[in-house]
Amino acid sequence: MSQARRLVLGSSLSIGGSHTSVWRHPRYWSDASINIDYFVSAARKAEEGKLDFIFVGDSLYVNDHTAPHLINRLEPLTLLSVVAGATSRIGLVGTLSTTYHEPFHVARLFGSLDHISRGRAAWNVVTTALPGTAENFGRDSHLEHDQRYRVATEFLDVVKGLWDSWEEGAFLRDKSSGVYFDASKLHTLNYKGEHFSVRGPLSMERTPQGRPIIVQAGSSDAGKDFAARHAEIVFTHQPSIEEAKRFYHDIKERAAKLGRNPNELLVLPGISTIVADSAAQAQQKQDEIDALIDIDEALKELERYLDPAAIARIDLDEQLAPHLDGLLTDGYQAETERIAQLVHKENLTLRGLALRMSTRAGHNPFVGTAEHVADAIQQWFEAEAVDGFIVSSGPIVPEGLHHFVDQVVPILQGRGLYHTDYRAETLRGQLGLPVPPNRYAQATT
Amino acid sequence: MSQARRLVLGSSLSIGGSHTSVWRHPRYWSDASINIDYFVSAARKAEEGKLDFIFVGDSLYVNDHTAPHLINRLEPLTLLSVVAGATSRIGLVGTLSTTYHEPFHVARLFGSLDHISRGRAAWNVVTTALPGTAENFGRDSHLEHDQRYRVATEFLDVVKGLWDSWEEGAFLRDKSSGVYFDASKLHTLNYKGEHFSVRGPLSMERTPQGRPIIVQAGSSDAGKDFAARHAEIVFTHQPSIEEAKRFYHDIKERAAKLGRNPNELLVLPGISTIVADSAAQAQQKQDEIDALIDIDEALKELERYLDPAAIARIDLDEQLAPHLDGLLTDGYQAETERIAQLVHKENLTLRGLALRMSTRAGHNPFVGTAEHVADAIQQWFEAEAVDGFIVSSGPIVPEGLHHFVDQVVPILQGRGLYHTDYRAETLRGQLGLPVPPNRYAQATT
Repeated sequence: MSQARRLVLGSSLSIGGSHTSVWRHPRYWSDASINIDYFVSAARKAEEGKLDFIFVGDSLYVNDHTAPHLINRLEPLTLLSVVAGATSRIGLVGTLSTTYHEPFHVARLFGSLDHISRGRAAWNVVTTALPGTAENFGRDSHLEHDQRYRVATEFLDVVKGLWDSWEEGAFLRDKSSGVYFDASKLHTLNYKGEHFSVRGPLSMERTPQGRPIIVQAGSSDAGKDFAARHAEIVFTHQPSIEEAKRFYHDIKERAAKLGRNPNELLVLPGISTIVADSAAQAQQKQDEIDALIDIDEALKELERYLDPAAIARIDLDEQLAPHLDGLLTDGYQAETERIAQLVHKENLTLRGLALRMSTRAGHNPFVGTAEHVADAIQQWFEAEAVDGFIVSSGPIVPEGLHHFVDQVVPILQGRGLYHTDYRAETLRGQLGLPVPPNRYAQATT
Repeated sequence: MSQARRLVLGSSLSIGGSHTSVWRHPRYWSDASINIDYFVSAARKAEEGKLDFIFVGDSLYVNDHTAPHLINRLEPLTLLSVVAGATSRIGLVGTLSTTYHEPFHVARLFGSLDHISRGRAAWNVVTTALPGTAENFGRDSHLEHDQRYRVATEFLDVVKGLWDSWEEGAFLRDKSSGVYFDASKLHTLNYKGEHFSVRGPLSMERTPQGRPIIVQAGSSDAGKDFAARHAEIVFTHQPSIEEAKRFYHDIKERAAKLGRNPNELLVLPGISTIVADSAAQAQQKQDEIDALIDIDEALKELERYLDPAAIARIDLDEQLAPHLDGLLTDGYQAETERIAQLVHKENLTLRGLALRMSTRAGHNPFVGTAEHVADAIQQWFEAEAVDGFIVSSGPIVPEGLHHFVDQVVPILQGRGLYHTDYRAETLRGQLGLPVPPNRYAQATT
């Protein structure tokens, strides 16, 4: 490795995470998910802390069982465009689905965000887990898991091809000669694949970052292969430093085997932090939040992973293990596998699993004093379990983010672990990720 | 009519219009179409003049024959979201196609813009005229003209239905009871039509305007019927006050026949103004701009209306009339009909038509002193030929808009014809357009 590793910190402004009732906390901004003032003020707070980027999730299907914080939300690209105008350096990561979108629109949306933000756009590529989504897009059925990744691979090929439509410097705008663009630097994609057929070119010059950064969160086997091939940032969930290490080395090896420089793929688990003046006070805050859990809400949330009809048939306090076969859904494959292991290992009842999934109780090393949280971050980073973290703005939104920026970041900066100012104008520059060459550009000799 | 008519003025920030070489003018901001600073500063200038809205066009297909100002542009919704954050009262009209988009995405994008802007969003519904667009979306062929309008009608039914998913006040967010929303105010669309099948609900609460305003620019017979049924603003091009009057009364009658209040459909032709200290100076500026025209560029622009292969076969100075059959394309039907009439009436050659289309020479009553331009606006408005205008930010971008705001608007205000401040917080309020009732809401008794 020629360069020192850099700790990367993003902030997830997506509301909620797994705790379905935390919005009831007195200090929780309960309409945040639909309130642009929340996103602008949180992004500015994150920029105050020199965080590398903000992250915004998405979904394309809700019903009356959807968790409160997910049922009412702004669309990510419009949201991030407002934030782009209200900030100047922080990166902007937004989520769009390859299963329910058109590559031409997606290339334009993220290309436009990259132009608008002067080089701060990143696309979190998702394949969409919830089967009901198909019904919002006139599809007979939701594609099965691995097929979604095959479509996604082609989708990315097309989008990257469209982003290469115009070489650097193609637009001359020479008023005296009347030459607006250099036609030799315009390339028509003419893509014809199994799932997509797209002519091009994109109606947009090369973006400030060459192309927006690719982020990916799949952690199934197909998801990890996809990430190793395409992703520059991997967003993941890892319950312990040991599991994080295994994941980190697995994904970096997969990338290396594909001929990629593993340093150009950053592994960032999502974490939720609770910061207080003492360990006891932090735990008290955690207990206060856990006490808000409503078992009905927790069960609804489980329907992402377990078949709703089956849930309804099982007694709350019955052992779950004997029922598991055929109960787990096709989406979120890595998570459902983890659930199966947990149920067997700890002999969980349905109630036990629901509460466990809602609180992630006993699994959070990032609860404690600011020193403790900074120590944990340093430990995971130096153990090469992570390249950094995506820190939730919660659990109490947006107080979690404010405490992190005001109390934890200065400690990391004081230790020389984290930058005290942005290093570059673009997110690629900031993260040390290279600008991908345009596929058509002649190497200069 | 119970209320006095209000003069409405919007500004089109779309670059170019019909003049393909005006970017060569020394004062033209030649990278404006891809530069967010242009859109933000122009929107702020328009807001300084209390203009009702800004308008942004779009297209989904370019090739190396596309006019310079259209080949490299920002995506409208991301662009308008930045502008939403940088302004506080002006309306935001953006263009999206019903032929190449999904209703669920479009409902979210404009719904999100309406939330983000606190009630200033409007959707310019287009059916997409350029047949090549099909190739960017994996379609075998572009739908023919009237079929596009049938699809658009269904598309709008779906989008309006999705916008009604949640009644006013559905989100209670009651922390003490734990009730986040009132389930009786949630409605699942379950739409199944000929072209679309969309379950719903939308993952977004009712927007500040009830729903975004619908704008439409079709002027063919199918287009006018569609506008009469759905549009709240009709964007049109009318070469003379007489033609404008005929169009105005035609469209208002069509709306009345469908049981609509014709005052709730505003007819706004697009105009390009040139303002100078004297009529002679204004004409001189017009001549300066026209002198920039390049015949090759002008011919390329004609390819929107005439088959390119046919254009290549015809001598530039030959009479065009005998060749017209089979030469006109299927898109922009009203415009191609106008071209056919013009060619026959004035015995135009190919060169003559190209220059005529590029300059619209001799057809612009809005060139002259500020008083003259204000007089023309007043005359068209008082003659009930229009409800107002959509004023181009050009022809010299953005100087045209600045001159209009600084010199023409104050005269209209001085005459009591135009407001001196915004009347309302939302664009609907500003334009006097009613908030559409939610289809599921019980009338209060």
